[in-house]
Amino acid sequence: MTISKNVQQIISNASWIRKMFEQGALLKAEHGAQNVFDFSLGNPNLPPPKEFEIILKDTVDNLKPGDHGYMPQAGYPFVCKAIAKYLSAEQQVPVSAGEIIMTCGAAGALNIMLKTILDPGDEVLTPTPCFVEYRFYVDNHGGVLKTVPTKKDFTLDIDAIAAAITSRTKAVIINSPNNPTGQIYSRESLLLLGALLQKKGKEYNRIIYLISDEPYRKIVFDGAIVPSIFQCYPNSLIGTSYSKDLSIPGERIGFGAVNPAAEYKDDLLEGMTLANRILGFVNAPALIQKVVARLQGKQVDVERYRKKRDLLCKGLADCGYEFITPPGAFYLFPKTPVKDDVKFVKELQKELILVVPGSGFACPGYFRIAFCVDDQTIINALPLFKKVMDKF
Amino acid sequence: MTISKNVQQIISNASWIRKMFEQGALLKAEHGAQNVFDFSLGNPNLPPPKEFEIILKDTVDNLKPGDHGYMPQAGYPFVCKAIAKYLSAEQQVPVSAGEIIMTCGAAGALNIMLKTILDPGDEVLTPTPCFVEYRFYVDNHGGVLKTVPTKKDFTLDIDAIAAAITSRTKAVIINSPNNPTGQIYSRESLLLLGALLQKKGKEYNRIIYLISDEPYRKIVFDGAIVPSIFQCYPNSLIGTSYSKDLSIPGERIGFGAVNPAAEYKDDLLEGMTLANRILGFVNAPALIQKVVARLQGKQVDVERYRKKRDLLCKGLADCGYEFITPPGAFYLFPKTPVKDDVKFVKELQKELILVVPGSGFACPGYFRIAFCVDDQTIINALPLFKKVMDKF
Repeated sequence: MTISKNVQQIISNASWIRKMFEQGALLKAEHGAQNVFDFSLGNPNLPPPKEFEIILKDTVDNLKPGDHGYMPQAGYPFVCKAIAKYLSAEQQVPVSAGEIIMTCGAAGALNIMLKTILDPGDEVLTPTPCFVEYRFYVDNHGGVLKTVPTKKDFTLDIDAIAAAITSRTKAVIINSPNNPTGQIYSRESLLLLGALLQKKGKEYNRIIYLISDEPYRKIVFDGAIVPSIFQCYPNSLIGTSYSKDLSIPGERIGFGAVNPAAEYKDDLLEGMTLANRILGFVNAPALIQKVVARLQGKQVDVERYRKKRDLLCKGLADCGYEFITPPGAFYLFPKTPVKDDVKFVKELQKELILVVPGSGFACPGYFRIAFCVDDQTIINALPLFKKVMDKF
Repeated sequence: MTISKNVQQIISNASWIRKMFEQGALLKAEHGAQNVFDFSLGNPNLPPPKEFEIILKDTVDNLKPGDHGYMPQAGYPFVCKAIAKYLSAEQQVPVSAGEIIMTCGAAGALNIMLKTILDPGDEVLTPTPCFVEYRFYVDNHGGVLKTVPTKKDFTLDIDAIAAAITSRTKAVIINSPNNPTGQIYSRESLLLLGALLQKKGKEYNRIIYLISDEPYRKIVFDGAIVPSIFQCYPNSLIGTSYSKDLSIPGERIGFGAVNPAAEYKDDLLEGMTLANRILGFVNAPALIQKVVARLQGKQVDVERYRKKRDLLCKGLADCGYEFITPPGAFYLFPKTPVKDDVKFVKELQKELILVVPGSGFACPGYFRIAFCVDDQTIINALPLFKKVMDKF
């Protein structure tokens, strides 16, 4: 007996992914990082908006005694208030400061929500392809993640979700714009989902929460709109971060919000504040809370991601790759020309291209390209994508 | 069914503490915060050392592209390296960068350690009085916290620990200097504890980890020395933060370190890095990592805490309170003159003095005074402490 069996198993199950990343690191060491086309990470390459640096400096220049001390575990009240004001306009539902809890990113928000709602053995549904971490987040708190397929274009399949709901279903997690597909779920589909959760909740005499993971909400193209989740279902929660829209993922800042119309709103908020404390987050980092409060509505230059998307989509289409053009986020999720996505990804590695196989998102037969990289990386990689395609 | 039964129960069990804090908030609203003597919170009142502000500004002025992005989940290698260098001197054991994982404070460090080592039902021992959060941290990851009494002067009772170890014991958590007593465990007692864990581990054919929670290590008085834990037991881990010694608890920065001599060092480090990711911390906040790397060995003006301690100890001794003069931390843990510590604390509240009853630290019959407050608060409160003592 050395370490936890569960952790040992997670490590050993992930060994193929780790090996792939190790292989990528070896390739960089061997050929030079600048010669490897790394599309494997969702680490935004655009700089934060100009205002970020200005406000960070201004905040640091105007610190007062106690400003690095503890604050309420839900965050500074003035920060929650600024976010509530912005969120009210965004969601078209009046949200108050008390309905916001500042967190260590969206990952922190999702964990405190799941800690708050899950009893042992509770099931959480999520449509695939899905962010690989959801399985761990749910497992951390004694729940079980069950995946549900989406339609061919990666939009919600309400019938599939209906069929997957059982008496143990406690929540559905959605991620729109989606990682890895970039797909945005329509207002119509969210209203149908809301109605379904309401009906099934009554049937099973329990509340089924809808958790909306929205870190890519502001990374959308061609005027695409991400619908208000709070308008579509009362027992809904939003978990999000400033990681992608301000390009500051390393700073770990985001928030959780509870729908003002949620039936057990006060219990949820009290539970989430407790969970923020006892899971060891304690509070979201102090300095950066103050900075994001003053950056509501600001974002990176999304047009630059749009251009990268178009460059990549046109190039890959010309090589014969099949994909849905993503309306949001900075990922493309093409089909692999062979069934075995891991094999295909290894072929790309031979050409020094790093991507993630769809299996990593519970969706084999596809692969994810993170296009938050230099334009030149895309341009230089395209002939190699073609070369590998031509092999099959 | 609304929220998790476990979270509901934690909230309802803590209701008396919450009521006390609510009562304190009401008193402040009624009488003005400046007229309430708040000794209830371990929120350091000394400013960070001068160098902190200088280095924070310098770091912000010299940010490079990507500096707010993701870094390795264990933290920036150069930050881990700076800490390893300092820790090597402090522990008198050579520690390398790979044995350090940057965390969201000590609370983050303890949680990733417990996640890494605990199987369901594993027991974790801790001497009382103890930091109240340990129970939750252990419970988060399926373990059970068992408390063991200390001696009358709050030093380790090795026989009591020996008697409490079972075939399910996976770890012992110690906190020295201790919250709430300020006591420091001697090198002799730690060597005995190490030898005990080694022996019992062999007996039960498992490793019993020693987790040392050390956020008060640098807050010590009169030349007191906190012994090196790495020298006392190979299977040991250190969890700590810069919250108290740099007075920046709101920034959530600390680290976990694994003894280079630990039998399953690599598994521990791999597990802790994974846990940092999947528990939702992802990584310690980027900016503040860079700042603390350049502040190794710096600390607040501990002499000011020493003066506060002496002021409080002399005053309370004169009123007839009994206590151990704390060699470290910024807490005093006197006996209550009546058995019922909650009743006594309520009497202090009538005089607008806020403290925490010993029951909150699994040690009834005592109360905790956090003396990280203005000198004047101590001076003004002393006659009221006397008044309440005289009632009994």
